[in-house]
Amino acid sequence: MEAGDFSDFNIRIAVVGLGLIGGSLALALRKLKPLEILGIDKDDIILEEAIRNGIIDRGCKAGPGVLELADLVIIALYPEETVEFLKENAYNFKKGAVITDTCGIKTGIIEEVNSFLPQDVDFIGGHPMAGKESKGLKAADQNLFKDANYIITPMPRNRNKNLELIKRIAKGIGCRDIIAITPQEHDRIITYTSQLPHVIAVSLMNSNVFEQNIGKFTGGSFKDATRVAAINSMLWSQLFTMNSDNLIDEIERFEESIKIIKKAILSQDKNTLDNMFNNASMNIRRMKV
Amino acid sequence: MEAGDFSDFNIRIAVVGLGLIGGSLALALRKLKPLEILGIDKDDIILEEAIRNGIIDRGCKAGPGVLELADLVIIALYPEETVEFLKENAYNFKKGAVITDTCGIKTGIIEEVNSFLPQDVDFIGGHPMAGKESKGLKAADQNLFKDANYIITPMPRNRNKNLELIKRIAKGIGCRDIIAITPQEHDRIITYTSQLPHVIAVSLMNSNVFEQNIGKFTGGSFKDATRVAAINSMLWSQLFTMNSDNLIDEIERFEESIKIIKKAILSQDKNTLDNMFNNASMNIRRMKV
Repeated sequence: MEAGDFSDFNIRIAVVGLGLIGGSLALALRKLKPLEILGIDKDDIILEEAIRNGIIDRGCKAGPGVLELADLVIIALYPEETVEFLKENAYNFKKGAVITDTCGIKTGIIEEVNSFLPQDVDFIGGHPMAGKESKGLKAADQNLFKDANYIITPMPRNRNKNLELIKRIAKGIGCRDIIAITPQEHDRIITYTSQLPHVIAVSLMNSNVFEQNIGKFTGGSFKDATRVAAINSMLWSQLFTMNSDNLIDEIERFEESIKIIKKAILSQDKNTLDNMFNNASMNIRRMKV
Repeated sequence: MEAGDFSDFNIRIAVVGLGLIGGSLALALRKLKPLEILGIDKDDIILEEAIRNGIIDRGCKAGPGVLELADLVIIALYPEETVEFLKENAYNFKKGAVITDTCGIKTGIIEEVNSFLPQDVDFIGGHPMAGKESKGLKAADQNLFKDANYIITPMPRNRNKNLELIKRIAKGIGCRDIIAITPQEHDRIITYTSQLPHVIAVSLMNSNVFEQNIGKFTGGSFKDATRVAAINSMLWSQLFTMNSDNLIDEIERFEESIKIIKKAILSQDKNTLDNMFNNASMNIRRMKV
């Protein structure tokens, strides 16, 4: 069978990077009964563990030996490592292979990757919007993507049937909504819906000046507001700096929003506070957050 | 039996204000098997509903007729209404009665209330740190206080056995930790752990400029960060304005914290980002949030 010809899931899928996302993907993909799930991870121990637990069928520390077998390659590495892996392996893929990534930013990745990938492979940008506080294969969970949003950023060069494959994969691992937008739209919206909340959680945690165990003085609002503050620092420093223009814009818009509420509190202006609260409630309903 | 003499729970408890907090308190208090649970609410329909559903045993639209029977009075009104109710009913309480409130700010309330309450009643400031997005008796839930924090702010004039009663009540309704601090400490810490997260959630929601249904582009972080943005506007405009000095301080500290991360993103300074992320993670662990 030539890659790109997918009746049912008679395909071999390679997952690159067996961390939280890659491990969870491999576990969830099993339900789709592909011919084989292959794994690539630079860590021997992780590879052995993944094979021993049936998470992958076969594995390798590098691309060659695995990539030439895979009809679909899902890269679950950090942004910089994703580009690096693709650069190193640009000519190791099976002809016609579909390649997708899982990075939280898209514009920079897709532009760079398409500048060096050969025409006989099809790279489709993807972003499964799921995660949790713990990282690594030990945290992998076959239900991580249940009811999550999965964003894809198709480009004119992507083949329709390959886009359909990614959508089936996303549905198959449990995602509820699969949304196709441009990489630029993705990065702009995600700045607001994901990066800004992370900036806020970290800033809130870092603005603490209390010596006490403030855990005894919290209700649900503080726990919610800071849950993501235990941030994966290597991943997020890449995401923030690769998307800095959008992120600075969103932070400044948020700063303006804070300034308005601060002014109303300073001047004891309950009317303005009331309007702001009602606007926030209305937005929550309107956006079906 | 004189009020203030509590072997077991052979006492009558009055709950003033049968909204989410008052209704949930009444439901949770039932497990303690007090002699009677009395209710006060200005809304006839709510009173009837509370009696019909066995949430209270008897009720009244105003203080007289109920307050003279109650050994313990728990006021579950908004801050301004709490002071107003106590002012109107200062001389309607049973001699020796213990009175407590549930307001999210304490200094202003306690100073004012103690300026006019007669010496033969004992007012103890209380703050059960629980809530949810919906309001009113229909949202009342006997498990609302399960594992919550309950803060009390004892004053020198409070009698020890009355403080013990409030602690037993707090334990009895399911709270995990009962912490005694001064009203001033309470207001300062709560500004950071509760008011600031609400300011942030509202500001984040109000800084949205996207027309799209952004619900399709969110992961857990956005839902968490904005859960409390559907704010009870009457309650929170009181809480914010009555605590404005503390709140402005905390907002400004948070603004500084945001500025530091913004500067690091602007200058692509991954080292500083890394330090900030690690500091946030460490704080989360240290504070046992």
